[in-house]
Amino acid sequence: MNRIPTAVVGASGYTGQELLRILLAHPLVDLVTATSRAAAGRWLSDAFPRFSGLPGADLPFSDPDPDAIAATGAKAAFLALPHGVAAEIARALLKRGLRVVDLSADFRIHDPAVYEEFYGLAHPAPDLLGQAVFGLAEIHAEEIRGANLVASAGCYPTSILLPLIPLLRERLIDPTTIVAHSMSGVSGAGRKASIPLLYCECNESVRGYGMPKHRHLSEIEQELSLAADETVRISFLPHLVPATAGIATTTTATLNGSLMEVEAALEYAYGKAPFVRLLGPGGFPDTKNVLRTNFIDIGWHHDERTGRLLLLSAEDNLGKGAAGQAVQNFNLMFGLFESSGLQSV
Amino acid sequence: MNRIPTAVVGASGYTGQELLRILLAHPLVDLVTATSRAAAGRWLSDAFPRFSGLPGADLPFSDPDPDAIAATGAKAAFLALPHGVAAEIARALLKRGLRVVDLSADFRIHDPAVYEEFYGLAHPAPDLLGQAVFGLAEIHAEEIRGANLVASAGCYPTSILLPLIPLLRERLIDPTTIVAHSMSGVSGAGRKASIPLLYCECNESVRGYGMPKHRHLSEIEQELSLAADETVRISFLPHLVPATAGIATTTTATLNGSLMEVEAALEYAYGKAPFVRLLGPGGFPDTKNVLRTNFIDIGWHHDERTGRLLLLSAEDNLGKGAAGQAVQNFNLMFGLFESSGLQSV
Amino acid sequence: MNRIPTAVVGASGYTGQELLRILLAHPLVDLVTATSRAAAGRWLSDAFPRFSGLPGADLPFSDPDPDAIAATGAKAAFLALPHGVAAEIARALLKRGLRVVDLSADFRIHDPAVYEEFYGLAHPAPDLLGQAVFGLAEIHAEEIRGANLVASAGCYPTSILLPLIPLLRERLIDPTTIVAHSMSGVSGAGRKASIPLLYCECNESVRGYGMPKHRHLSEIEQELSLAADETVRISFLPHLVPATAGIATTTTATLNGSLMEVEAALEYAYGKAPFVRLLGPGGFPDTKNVLRTNFIDIGWHHDERTGRLLLLSAEDNLGKGAAGQAVQNFNLMFGLFESSGLQSV
Amino acid sequence: MNRIPTAVVGASGYTGQELLRILLAHPLVDLVTATSRAAAGRWLSDAFPRFSGLPGADLPFSDPDPDAIAATGAKAAFLALPHGVAAEIARALLKRGLRVVDLSADFRIHDPAVYEEFYGLAHPAPDLLGQAVFGLAEIHAEEIRGANLVASAGCYPTSILLPLIPLLRERLIDPTTIVAHSMSGVSGAGRKASIPLLYCECNESVRGYGMPKHRHLSEIEQELSLAADETVRISFLPHLVPATAGIATTTTATLNGSLMEVEAALEYAYGKAPFVRLLGPGGFPDTKNVLRTNFIDIGWHHDERTGRLLLLSAEDNLGKGAAGQAVQNFNLMFGLFESSGLQSV
Repeated sequence: MNRIPTAVVGASGYTGQELLRILLAHPLVDLVTATSRAAAGRWLSDAFPRFSGLPGADLPFSDPDPDAIAATGAKAAFLALPHGVAAEIARALLKRGLRVVDLSADFRIHDPAVYEEFYGLAHPAPDLLGQAVFGLAEIHAEEIRGANLVASAGCYPTSILLPLIPLLRERLIDPTTIVAHSMSGVSGAGRKASIPLLYCECNESVRGYGMPKHRHLSEIEQELSLAADETVRISFLPHLVPATAGIATTTTATLNGSLMEVEAALEYAYGKAPFVRLLGPGGFPDTKNVLRTNFIDIGWHHDERTGRLLLLSAEDNLGKGAAGQAVQNFNLMFGLFESSGLQSV
Repeated sequence: MNRIPTAVVGASGYTGQELLRILLAHPLVDLVTATSRAAAGRWLSDAFPRFSGLPGADLPFSDPDPDAIAATGAKAAFLALPHGVAAEIARALLKRGLRVVDLSADFRIHDPAVYEEFYGLAHPAPDLLGQAVFGLAEIHAEEIRGANLVASAGCYPTSILLPLIPLLRERLIDPTTIVAHSMSGVSGAGRKASIPLLYCECNESVRGYGMPKHRHLSEIEQELSLAADETVRISFLPHLVPATAGIATTTTATLNGSLMEVEAALEYAYGKAPFVRLLGPGGFPDTKNVLRTNFIDIGWHHDERTGRLLLLSAEDNLGKGAAGQAVQNFNLMFGLFESSGLQSV
Repeated sequence: MNRIPTAVVGASGYTGQELLRILLAHPLVDLVTATSRAAAGRWLSDAFPRFSGLPGADLPFSDPDPDAIAATGAKAAFLALPHGVAAEIARALLKRGLRVVDLSADFRIHDPAVYEEFYGLAHPAPDLLGQAVFGLAEIHAEEIRGANLVASAGCYPTSILLPLIPLLRERLIDPTTIVAHSMSGVSGAGRKASIPLLYCECNESVRGYGMPKHRHLSEIEQELSLAADETVRISFLPHLVPATAGIATTTTATLNGSLMEVEAALEYAYGKAPFVRLLGPGGFPDTKNVLRTNFIDIGWHHDERTGRLLLLSAEDNLGKGAAGQAVQNFNLMFGLFESSGLQSV
Repeated sequence: MNRIPTAVVGASGYTGQELLRILLAHPLVDLVTATSRAAAGRWLSDAFPRFSGLPGADLPFSDPDPDAIAATGAKAAFLALPHGVAAEIARALLKRGLRVVDLSADFRIHDPAVYEEFYGLAHPAPDLLGQAVFGLAEIHAEEIRGANLVASAGCYPTSILLPLIPLLRERLIDPTTIVAHSMSGVSGAGRKASIPLLYCECNESVRGYGMPKHRHLSEIEQELSLAADETVRISFLPHLVPATAGIATTTTATLNGSLMEVEAALEYAYGKAPFVRLLGPGGFPDTKNVLRTNFIDIGWHHDERTGRLLLLSAEDNLGKGAAGQAVQNFNLMFGLFESSGLQSV
């Protein structure tokens, strides 16, 4: 099988770095260009010395020009760009025949009014929303397979949606009682020069932020509502903890069924999913077990004294929460094995 | 005013170390003995080199013998011992006329049946429960002042109880909807040789544990029920994060009143409390701002979309959550300024 | 005794924060103003929430205007400013009758040509160099006592100079063989928005930098040469390690005398020094034992196989390496106990 | 090509975990058994949840019985055992026809008297020393290719030897002046329940240890002496820093030649070595760039003021310093590509 010529657009941040790390080792990908406005002209290995001497990494960052990207022969492009910026370049690349995996929020929200409410700007490309697929492979695999534009799911949303969706579908929890508490490593905030992200500000620091209306609520509630077939509103409580990577989420909701039914619903949904590891009732996921992988580990507990179900998940915010998931979507789009290039631990 | 001759029993763990740190600098305390079965015979500064050369630290750890402790002339004793062990020595010291601040769980639970349910052993001294006062100074100051036996509140409970109690008293939240999510630094697990507490097991690791029925629920629900004047059951979700110290707790509950009433209730309860810092609506406490202090910082948010109130708190698990709080209780018991010896940051 | 009205100029960085922390609790200091060009108008406790509610911290940052500072009645000023900037304001404050403790490098180097060589700019106030005293209290206490302008020693230099000076004075080591290897926490690099100082860039990272000619060599070699009474050149190897604070230094040099003579020289020099703790031969200092103190711990080893002496030291780069040392100098200048305000651990 | 049936003996520590991680993904290895006295009967994925669901990881730990290991058909065995214990099982496996890569110190030292001096026990298998090859692939590739028993080099030694050996061979540095300063992450101390290795003891702690005569000196000096063709004694200064993995070493020695000659010697030695990355003069290696790889990064600086050469290296103590290097040796022994299974970053 031929390798697929692939571009990474916006490759100089933490998600870009993880994308490069995965794609450089992907057996069916040929990385033909990596762009970065900030790092244009520098070598990949200059910005990321980790890649020095690696086959395929002997490449400079180029400017994110759509024509230049198309001229490389790329058939696919990953966009690791800020929201608002991604939509435009997605349009340009789609027009030039590339298939796009967008890691920004630009095409995750079906309703442009919701996008505007949460992101504070008019949707930059509402005409493209119709063809965009929400890129959560375990839930939307069929649509992803046929799509030219996949909006890869966000880091927090993935950690919250995967445990909840099968239970909402089976009406095993009360959708009005959902509270999701998440703890993220600092890389989730991006690679930008900012005092609050300094080592000395994050080390020995645990703090909440972004409450009560974090942007990721928009895609979380969209997908939960689809699963529940009714409008779902949840409380989402994000926190920053002193770790480079990893997201752990603990979600509570009133249980309407039995623990056995919960287990059955999760087994039914994910029994064959290569990247969801069900730790079973009583299981405690730990972020250190999923770092640099595309796995999400899920455990659950019945709090009989309050009637609540406790759902715990752990993923790498840069892996299953971003770059790994994007590659998983890419694999589906191009008819590869879903786990191609994603099996290293 | 004369210094109060004081003993620390069980001084070789992390809480013991923090107690020593505070007491050695307390202007009205004379540390007369520190005991440790494990470290007996070694010098304080040998086990804790940090104290080397410090006035008053030129002391060996002694065996925890009640007669020997009493013979030092100690009028007060802090017990930093495991539950089950503390009760016995508390009895012996009380009999010898010392006033006791117990940092274990042994005297926190009024009902010995609840103690047995949560701690798995018959209460070791049910006859003493009648005189024991729950040592949460902001709530029980009056009783603490007259007490000879104070059961200093636990680390997680303090971070959960202080934000909630004023609101339950005023019936501003629905007590059936409380979910408390806590993140603790590793020192909370104690200073014991244990694989899961190794640096390499905790670094870059975020994990839940102790769900759904952590022992601290017993004292949390006892105090919440007292405040609400009805039986309260909550979900409590403890997590371990890669930090040495600090607890951040985010608690959610359905709001029955207005945000203004919440603020008024908290201001009324803590407006003059020297160690509760109200960050106001929209505030985000950060553990790094309270480490090595006796402060608890509290912020709150109204999640209007779900009708929930979000309460955030941050404290040092070894400070306000343990040693600092114990000294605050001691100050009240002996009629000192509540903040004596606790003002350094 | 009356409190000394004191100003901190440039108070919004990490050294400024530690200065404020110490001075707010200093029994003989009245903090009358804290300036910060960047934070002017904001409250101390807004920039540093840790200080919120602390007696004396209810103060806004003001602009660093010399007349305004003098108008507060300040008798002393600490300058925590970049080199080049400090000299000018030092001159202005000296002219207005204040005594100055400068934490920058501006007045540490006696020879303006050496300053220019290492700092790359002409000395901004060569006429003041004559009255400036190098602020390493254990070595220059007498001159510090009478001085109006003290140039507090740098963080790395302190950790290197204190172990070496007594041995050079006694000619116990060969000054041509000195290699000093230092490891610093990240706060040493300052509180500035910079990609290489981000949490994710420093965590799980150990790296050298600033070799072979780090600026601090200028003051290190000046003081070593004075002690040896000959020109001394050393190799200095600074490294950044993933910790917020602390410097550990290991220095090697060929031993010309006996281990007994080494011990005697160190005991003679520091037997009564309140902040130097000699751990003895075979001792291993650990930064965690000195954090937030003004102590420097020193151990030493004889490497008989190579004839070298190994000198190990540990200090808090923000404490004995910066703010603590500055307050120690201040105490000497104003005739206070050398350890006034510096005894907490 | 057929996969080589391979055993890992002593697989439940940190080195064992990294060996398993690499071997499970190695295209030419078939992991047939993993032994652990402590974890016997448990599943790999139970001790190391990271491996759960991974192809090939569905294996229990077995007892380290030589007959049982041979019965699996294993042709190769990696020994990740304590010194003293490894020799015996190595003998038993060699007798049964397996080829052995030993990661302990048992076969690194050619002279049993030196082994006894540094390890404090009589050599457990002096008769096997004749056939053992020191497993530093860049230096001893030819002998490794033909060997049945390879003693994989230690973590610190690798970081010190690779920069120095080419320079000693070319007589570019004075061998009497070598001082090697190393900083290691905590995993280097092993996965054992021990108070000094607890998170709270290592976090925010930098400390030296094992001076002046760390055991690794024995193999370091053996190999340096071979390269210099004379007896070499060095000072070795190991330190523990708060990181899970990584070793950074900075070595100084008086330079006898020119910087150009240094570069030429290193280029000549490692120009084609797949895992040595020469950062060039002025380069600063950073452990974060080599973690989870088999790379060692090397930079160097000329300290003209003192005439010393500064050599900096960074490696993963569990990678190039242990498991990666062992697999590299294995690849050579079995005639595979040297980098087979070692290319992921």
